[in-house]
Amino acid sequence: MAYDKTYDNLTLHTDKYQINMMYAHWKQGTMNDKAVFEIYFRKLPFGNGYAVFAGLERIVRYIQELRFGDEMIEFLRTQEEGYEEGFLEALREFRFTGNLWSVQEGDLVFPNEPLVRVEARIFEAQLIETALLNFMNYQTLIATKASRIKQVAPDDVLLEFGTRRAQEADAAVWGTRAAYLAGFHATSNVRAGMMFGIPVKGTHSHSWIQGHDSEEEAFRQYAEALPDQVTLLVDTYDTLKSGVPNAIRIAKLLESKGKRMQAIRLDSGDLAYLSKRAREMLDEAGLSYVKIIASNDLDENIIFNLKAQGAKIDIWGVGTQLITASDQPSLGGVYKLVAREKNGTYLPVIKISGNPEKVSNPGVKEVYRLINRRTRKAEADYIALTGEEDIRKGERIELFDPVHPYLRKTVEHYEAVPLLKSVFQNGELVYSMPSLDEIRSYHAEQLKLFWPEYLRKLNPEKYRVNFSRAAWNLKMELLQQYQQ
Amino acid sequence: MAYDKTYDNLTLHTDKYQINMMYAHWKQGTMNDKAVFEIYFRKLPFGNGYAVFAGLERIVRYIQELRFGDEMIEFLRTQEEGYEEGFLEALREFRFTGNLWSVQEGDLVFPNEPLVRVEARIFEAQLIETALLNFMNYQTLIATKASRIKQVAPDDVLLEFGTRRAQEADAAVWGTRAAYLAGFHATSNVRAGMMFGIPVKGTHSHSWIQGHDSEEEAFRQYAEALPDQVTLLVDTYDTLKSGVPNAIRIAKLLESKGKRMQAIRLDSGDLAYLSKRAREMLDEAGLSYVKIIASNDLDENIIFNLKAQGAKIDIWGVGTQLITASDQPSLGGVYKLVAREKNGTYLPVIKISGNPEKVSNPGVKEVYRLINRRTRKAEADYIALTGEEDIRKGERIELFDPVHPYLRKTVEHYEAVPLLKSVFQNGELVYSMPSLDEIRSYHAEQLKLFWPEYLRKLNPEKYRVNFSRAAWNLKMELLQQYQQ
Repeated sequence: MAYDKTYDNLTLHTDKYQINMMYAHWKQGTMNDKAVFEIYFRKLPFGNGYAVFAGLERIVRYIQELRFGDEMIEFLRTQEEGYEEGFLEALREFRFTGNLWSVQEGDLVFPNEPLVRVEARIFEAQLIETALLNFMNYQTLIATKASRIKQVAPDDVLLEFGTRRAQEADAAVWGTRAAYLAGFHATSNVRAGMMFGIPVKGTHSHSWIQGHDSEEEAFRQYAEALPDQVTLLVDTYDTLKSGVPNAIRIAKLLESKGKRMQAIRLDSGDLAYLSKRAREMLDEAGLSYVKIIASNDLDENIIFNLKAQGAKIDIWGVGTQLITASDQPSLGGVYKLVAREKNGTYLPVIKISGNPEKVSNPGVKEVYRLINRRTRKAEADYIALTGEEDIRKGERIELFDPVHPYLRKTVEHYEAVPLLKSVFQNGELVYSMPSLDEIRSYHAEQLKLFWPEYLRKLNPEKYRVNFSRAAWNLKMELLQQYQQ
Repeated sequence: MAYDKTYDNLTLHTDKYQINMMYAHWKQGTMNDKAVFEIYFRKLPFGNGYAVFAGLERIVRYIQELRFGDEMIEFLRTQEEGYEEGFLEALREFRFTGNLWSVQEGDLVFPNEPLVRVEARIFEAQLIETALLNFMNYQTLIATKASRIKQVAPDDVLLEFGTRRAQEADAAVWGTRAAYLAGFHATSNVRAGMMFGIPVKGTHSHSWIQGHDSEEEAFRQYAEALPDQVTLLVDTYDTLKSGVPNAIRIAKLLESKGKRMQAIRLDSGDLAYLSKRAREMLDEAGLSYVKIIASNDLDENIIFNLKAQGAKIDIWGVGTQLITASDQPSLGGVYKLVAREKNGTYLPVIKISGNPEKVSNPGVKEVYRLINRRTRKAEADYIALTGEEDIRKGERIELFDPVHPYLRKTVEHYEAVPLLKSVFQNGELVYSMPSLDEIRSYHAEQLKLFWPEYLRKLNPEKYRVNFSRAAWNLKMELLQQYQQ
């Protein structure tokens, strides 16, 4: 095993081509030229009406720890590119000294909006592309998936249970953090609890039952060991004939000691039928306080259908489908150059593509959320070039849709909230990092800004995101330039 | 940000219920009882005919580093379970002291076979379930996906390009390792290159072109910086009208300096048409040595179809679809108790389920690959209880299929290769860990043991995996016991 702890540092968590471009900039003397990149995605995942931005904490920590250590320099020296020593020296000096803006974790975000903006020496801005996308794409994906689940069970308790099926260890912990900020209540992953302060829940598995001579004996022993935390898994042999009756006996035993059993857990079979029948059995035994937890490959569609069938489930343990976002396991966020320094000023830059939605949006941009001052609801998001004044002053503006020009709309009496916050200035962290619970509360508040039609799981209404005329005209101009 | 480097240790990378069961065993005085667990999966992913086992190196390292540090003990002390101090002391002393067997990385494996077997104090065996499954599930999934891609392009160069869409950082590096051992040739992830010695490849992105006043200028500068490693991305403006002609000019410039351009890269558009036309243009210019790389959301189906259309692509850069296994982003490996110590002997254990394929296979088992001595091809895998003698001696055995009894088959003149190798004995590593390149070669050799009918991508022939009569009878006996 060739690696060791020094490799936990993520400075080389990047694509080789970034290093090669840094090298080529160093060679041609342009490494200190400034560039501006923006991160955005083009399409919402899962057919959802919004995404929940997440990943900033990870990005901040990554940037703060960027250092090319000796062993990394040595490794780069072995590469076929034959990097010159002067370049390796430049890497040794590498620090992030640029500016970074980001929307906040927990914000609802939409396609084509700049979510993160990096303004830095091209030498720095290029290196960080890969990791920023990796972190933002995954955590935003999982927060969005979790939010869909939250939408169908807004008043229930949601537990994240997916570690064993996660795509490796980082996904387990960062994914469960994303789920928590989107409204989940707890995780099964102990390390995630320690890292982030997320409540950690857990009971016992089938093997606990199998490890005893009878189910009742297994239940009794568990209840003796953890009398204040008793949740019993009732489906090892026969849920209704064995599991629930045994659990009821244990609950009565606990009552005789002045204790209350917390819950039973169903992990197989017809959860609608079993939960209703188990609820009746518990209630008949005077155990209406005992909750029912369900698990077994749940997702927002199964939960929605179980609830429609009147399933009596209080707590949902969601595993594989959430932690892998299994119906769409990646978000296609991209990091595009929008402006570059030339002779001391910024030149807006476009990327052409035969595929129209892949043409990038040039120029350094802000994104504003227009909140109606009367309803306190979000009316639209508005993407303008930095420096456009009318929007900042709250003047009446016209939203236009370049593809469907008849969808013209005038907005006034709005509050324009700039979504991009300054996070790093000249390499210094200037953003006050909220705690995870603050992010979770913030997200819950943000949801209230949106009419329910935008939030529903199936066929949500499309939330309006428009470019300012100036931003749109800039794009058209650059497209024309390239056509000539 | 609440966490720090101490959290890189993965000892708490487990589900809370494992800790709770460990606690309950400690309380009831059974923590030192031995138990045997086996890992297996029930269903092959992607409709493939086999899976490629991976994850052992990660598992070994994890087990070697298991330690409950002070900060972990402190964290557990804060939990609602109120663990007693004696238990926390027992955790401080925790080391893995058990035995572990595993099939080898690179082995072809099939449903219901024991892939990893753990024999340890229940206190230890319970803790490691979550992490073992997490590592094995993900790496085996990606190795299998990579192997499918390899099957459709056996003679081409395959590059893993997925970091920005991977499910966080660990997935990027361990996933690319899994792809490499299944036959990929290189990765774009520099850290993975450093950790595992995988060759690292990379060229430049669209932003390099956008950062210059013209495409030709951008190409020329790149070729000057890295004259021996020139691969040019030709689709920024117009592949055939601009990108390829400019690349040809640069190739000629390089020739005049005695250098050879390596390749051009296509990243959008109709890859079949563009690659054929680009090949013609390069050949007409006397540049038949310049390779063509393609990327853009490739998977085994797209590659297969492109090849069927005669696409002239030499090198495939595969990203999102591979690193997330996007058509099935999880493998459902499970870790089941098969025997437990009682009064000094092992008692076989079964888990019942209303779902027949979820009934576990009791007893401590071995798995043998039966190799025909004449053809040197694998005929079947055979799962027997440890201690069964006939198979070890190579005696004539009858394969029977309990569900379809007419599928009876007798095998003789076989070599029975036991697939489970001893990895840990009494907590000591006794397995000589192969290098990654050795694993990769080993895997390539293993593939040769199988007729192509088992390996094809679509509707593969089902490889035979049978239980011995003794193993099957044990299961039937235990089922009967539970029915009474």
